Amino acid sequence: MENIAALDSLFQPKSIAIVGASNTEGKIGYSVVHNLIESKYAGAIYPINPKDPEIQGLKAYKSVLDVSGDVETAVLTVPAKFIKSVIDECGKKGVKSLIIITSGFSEVGERELEDEIVELAHSYGMHILGPNIVGVLSNSDSMNASFAPFLPLNGKSSLVSQSGALLIAMDASTYTRRVGFDKLVSIGNMSDVNFGDVVGWLDNDKNTNCITLYIEGFKDGRHFMEVSRKAQKPIIALKSGVSAHGAAAAASHTGSLAGAAKVYGAAFQQAGVVQAADLDNLFDRSLALSLQPPMKGDNLLIITNGGGVGVLATDAAERFGIPLQFAPKDVQVELKKHMPAFGSAKNPVDITGMAGTEWYVDSVRYAIAHPWVDGVVVLYCETAVSNPLEIAQGIKAAVDEAGVDKPIIVSYVGGEKSENAMKWLVENGVPAYGAPDTAINAMAALRDYARMRELMDVNDETHHEVDREKALKIIASAREDGRDSLTEIEAKQVFAAYGLPVTKNALAKIEEEAVKLAEEIGFPVVMKIVSPDILHKSDAGGVKVNIKNSDEARAAFKTILENAKAYKADADIHGIVIQEMAPWGTEVILGSVNDPTFGPTMMFGLGGIFVEVLKDVTFRVAPVSQGQAMRMLGEIRGAPILAGVRGEAPRDREMLADTITRYATMILDLSDEISESDANPVLVYEEGKGIKVVDARIILKKK
Amino acid sequence: MENIAALDSLFQPKSIAIVGASNTEGKIGYSVVHNLIESKYAGAIYPINPKDPEIQGLKAYKSVLDVSGDVETAVLTVPAKFIKSVIDECGKKGVKSLIIITSGFSEVGERELEDEIVELAHSYGMHILGPNIVGVLSNSDSMNASFAPFLPLNGKSSLVSQSGALLIAMDASTYTRRVGFDKLVSIGNMSDVNFGDVVGWLDNDKNTNCITLYIEGFKDGRHFMEVSRKAQKPIIALKSGVSAHGAAAAASHTGSLAGAAKVYGAAFQQAGVVQAADLDNLFDRSLALSLQPPMKGDNLLIITNGGGVGVLATDAAERFGIPLQFAPKDVQVELKKHMPAFGSAKNPVDITGMAGTEWYVDSVRYAIAHPWVDGVVVLYCETAVSNPLEIAQGIKAAVDEAGVDKPIIVSYVGGEKSENAMKWLVENGVPAYGAPDTAINAMAALRDYARMRELMDVNDETHHEVDREKALKIIASAREDGRDSLTEIEAKQVFAAYGLPVTKNALAKIEEEAVKLAEEIGFPVVMKIVSPDILHKSDAGGVKVNIKNSDEARAAFKTILENAKAYKADADIHGIVIQEMAPWGTEVILGSVNDPTFGPTMMFGLGGIFVEVLKDVTFRVAPVSQGQAMRMLGEIRGAPILAGVRGEAPRDREMLADTITRYATMILDLSDEISESDANPVLVYEEGKGIKVVDARIILKKK
Repeated sequence: MENIAALDSLFQPKSIAIVGASNTEGKIGYSVVHNLIESKYAGAIYPINPKDPEIQGLKAYKSVLDVSGDVETAVLTVPAKFIKSVIDECGKKGVKSLIIITSGFSEVGERELEDEIVELAHSYGMHILGPNIVGVLSNSDSMNASFAPFLPLNGKSSLVSQSGALLIAMDASTYTRRVGFDKLVSIGNMSDVNFGDVVGWLDNDKNTNCITLYIEGFKDGRHFMEVSRKAQKPIIALKSGVSAHGAAAAASHTGSLAGAAKVYGAAFQQAGVVQAADLDNLFDRSLALSLQPPMKGDNLLIITNGGGVGVLATDAAERFGIPLQFAPKDVQVELKKHMPAFGSAKNPVDITGMAGTEWYVDSVRYAIAHPWVDGVVVLYCETAVSNPLEIAQGIKAAVDEAGVDKPIIVSYVGGEKSENAMKWLVENGVPAYGAPDTAINAMAALRDYARMRELMDVNDETHHEVDREKALKIIASAREDGRDSLTEIEAKQVFAAYGLPVTKNALAKIEEEAVKLAEEIGFPVVMKIVSPDILHKSDAGGVKVNIKNSDEARAAFKTILENAKAYKADADIHGIVIQEMAPWGTEVILGSVNDPTFGPTMMFGLGGIFVEVLKDVTFRVAPVSQGQAMRMLGEIRGAPILAGVRGEAPRDREMLADTITRYATMILDLSDEISESDANPVLVYEEGKGIKVVDARIILKKK
Repeated sequence: MENIAALDSLFQPKSIAIVGASNTEGKIGYSVVHNLIESKYAGAIYPINPKDPEIQGLKAYKSVLDVSGDVETAVLTVPAKFIKSVIDECGKKGVKSLIIITSGFSEVGERELEDEIVELAHSYGMHILGPNIVGVLSNSDSMNASFAPFLPLNGKSSLVSQSGALLIAMDASTYTRRVGFDKLVSIGNMSDVNFGDVVGWLDNDKNTNCITLYIEGFKDGRHFMEVSRKAQKPIIALKSGVSAHGAAAAASHTGSLAGAAKVYGAAFQQAGVVQAADLDNLFDRSLALSLQPPMKGDNLLIITNGGGVGVLATDAAERFGIPLQFAPKDVQVELKKHMPAFGSAKNPVDITGMAGTEWYVDSVRYAIAHPWVDGVVVLYCETAVSNPLEIAQGIKAAVDEAGVDKPIIVSYVGGEKSENAMKWLVENGVPAYGAPDTAINAMAALRDYARMRELMDVNDETHHEVDREKALKIIASAREDGRDSLTEIEAKQVFAAYGLPVTKNALAKIEEEAVKLAEEIGFPVVMKIVSPDILHKSDAGGVKVNIKNSDEARAAFKTILENAKAYKADADIHGIVIQEMAPWGTEVILGSVNDPTFGPTMMFGLGGIFVEVLKDVTFRVAPVSQGQAMRMLGEIRGAPILAGVRGEAPRDREMLADTITRYATMILDLSDEISESDANPVLVYEEGKGIKVVDARIILKKK
């Protein structure tokens, strides 16, 4: 959606018509009118009902066309078969957007009908939220335009959910979890308005600090990424359907295709979107992201009154990627003043079970202001000698006094008093959780967010000199031959056009040419038969390696041809490829697919058992920046191999990352042509010594 | 502890003396008396105070010796310096056990004092719980013999905690979490009564269904394992201090040595102890284990009214090791009757948002009784059209009616009504959780428990024919040489004495002997220099492989000797080892350490990068059963290699597992002698073709 403001009418309408409004309790058309009234919606409410002149005390209209005032948005609850005529009327009335609650569209196979209503709406300049949704709820607008029974507990996050049932249930659970939302948006079939659109709008919404997403499958993967990357607010996503069986369940549920967990994970990483592991985690992390600033460094300090919770938090810090370091000497010296002799000023800082409010306040005030400290987690085990609420208030005051832009998160383990103290903390902007692990996980979300943003803030957009015309010419020529894949030589030419360091090679048709080319390339060389009829070249005796001079080249040419003819007498032989023999290096693999959700997507992994047995690979959606490429190298389990093991020098990771960015540029630039590709093996040499793509393969899109 | 009944006096005393009882609020001696009175303890309470004749309305005594009636247990709260004299008096009085709350012992370095008080107590036949503890609380005995302010919410689990502060905080949180305990036991420094002792006692306690442990570090690793293995009740453990930094924090906290996470994990696995991932998980899993039977098969059926939570649960099922299968046809046909047309009878069974109580009841009643189904998770998203409590009651009735010994677990996502329904469910024996993932995790605990028990129920104790005398003789002879490690030949002889399939080898001192031995062993052979002065044999030219006949053997003998002398002229050369040259096979590594907590412990992993780069290894405490050994082979990431990859035949896993059990028997049997050992490499051949231990190393314990 180019003009995000067009969605104002969906999320902040000044007037709403409810088409299918009803006086019969239990009907959705009843609930929506009832809920708008109950939520004290301040705009005009126009119930539309062909029979009743009055709905729930409001004047009703036979058609939206009968309404005299403006109608900004219309909530449609009539059966699917009436939707088109209603849209027509709404269009004529000048309604700006439609909230279509009605189901019976693509989710039950009626894809065509869904396409038709979008086309119809667009012809009037209207946008559609839905169909097959619960509606839209907003605390800041006192608007419950949905059949969910009440507005959620007020909060600083806004939730967009692809599951309606879950949205209703989460709505109710905001009160028991004490984690609220400003808005709840049910996005349903996403026939028109997509995740990217809603994220874009919420990013400009002054009442939303954090955008919380429950996703089953995108329809607008790249658009979502683009919008998210530009967003100024944290975005957190729970992607369901990541198991094989779960993906099947998701597909049958919403009719949208659930992509692979790894590709979604890569896309979130590239777009700066924090991930949630499960439903509890979505609430917990949303709370932290909506209330606290990102954690802009790795130094987490934990302050605790109990050793046990301190150890649990320490374990969690390692598990969630923010391992603890001991605080510097000066920090320890100062903190030692606010604890008994048997306390510990290391990290966790254990101010002991004797701690009352004062020690907590003094420690927090000092710690959060110290330049070494990037974030503070305060743990409290309920004791008989301390006052949980007073400690909470003290912590908050200490943070305010320090006046720094660093995150603080609290965990209380205890009973009713601790619950009340945590409630007070959350209401006063400090996230608080009932277990130390949960608090650490929430802080890790703030750290993840900062890390992803740091990576994006580096201006490392990839600009490569490429020869697109040449690549397209090679592809066109293969297509003219009626092929939908390139030969190795052609694939390498395409790779080379994008600056990928392929081994030199050339095709020889006759013996003399082979010798000449081998001399030009430089010995030693490899010689291989090129024939569409001989796929298993080695089996056919069609490969000779380590050819050291002209005489050997001459002999090899003859032998290979003889072997090939013996193997298959009528084989169509294009010639023999002469190829630079690359010295041994660490084998890695690059590959690409056209992901159904995100388009050109690339994979990187180490060769051999790493890929085949361990599936030790990582993905990115193209294009890939140098920073992301370096990150990929660190993400695989075999990363130490690239760093250098068993006394070996580190591999040339800079150049490998550069190659990854070029590869990604290529698959994106040629996405209309390339269906799949791989570079396997790619040999990586010592730092400074570069890499070589030894073999290349490109499968073309069917046209 | 041999006589577990000796602990009756600790956990169910008929009379209690409080030494250090006080009238001064805030003192621990005040709290304990107060709490015993408040908890309505029915036994006799004897406050001991040298000055006050009356404590909190009870007659007080100057010394425990002044009490006329029997004193079963004494709670000691006096300062550490008075403890010995108090123990003396208690002993003389005939007190049976001591609950020592007082701190200031090994946790602050006073190890000697702690040893002395144990010795003193034992001299009177008394046992000590503590010191440095909170005390003991029991709902079923209406006894709060602690300074924790109140008894926990009543429940079917009993908690043993090594952290006092955490115990107090968890006590309070039972009311807000709605997960209760029957007993809380603070175990502190474990000077005498250990985890194993308490677990053993609780296993016989009719009010405890599940034993819940918070562990920082064992002092009685093997005893705990033995007791747990025999236990009839589920045991669940949260082990803290598993991170490197966390282990340091734990050590400074309780003065006990925290072992490696992997070794603890192995020990729990072998002892049938379910693990908790964090504090929330400890509560959640305890609840399920205390209320529901184990899940004795892999077929989990999920029934839901919302697709979204269904997909989340499906993902979680895969994540937690109980991946879903579609239900068989007959199950689907029957379930289809209790849902609208657009519902799904696969798995998850989606009875849709239209579901009311009846569909839930009909589905649950049928599903849980069906022989294919091993466990049922019911998910509910709060909707306006259904009644959460009524559904809860319906589910419970359906399960009761079915009358089968299979687990059921429920998850409600919703608000206050759902909370109340879940409370009702838990009070009526059905575990219920606020998120689908949590419910699945709890079911996974029931499955894990059943799996571990199944493995233990197989009677596969290892009985190997071993020649212990021979092994000891070889070791003794090395010690006589003043060595604390064995030569490769000696190590292989020890291995062979325990039936490990080592490659044949023998030591030749002169050329003729070498030729003769090579002929006996059979060509091809490997020849290697044996010299304590030449550690890097290959560098010294001291290794020749693939020696094919007698002439080559003769030549190799000469060359190796010459090379060795050239490398180090004054080297002490024992001779040259002639070794069977094993054909290539998959390389694996076995190794052993003497773990400070669990004693002889072995490691298994694949060779090469799997061990060096990926740290892809798994542990077991010796002895290891054939079943556990087979499980080890499946636990490593490289497991597919043993199953056969790239068209290779599966490796001989049976024989490898047998070798693992023999190896474990060896390190256990010789635990007084062997400090560390390894078999590296071990070559594993195709199924039925066995394995070969190519190299062996044994480091002796210093004596």
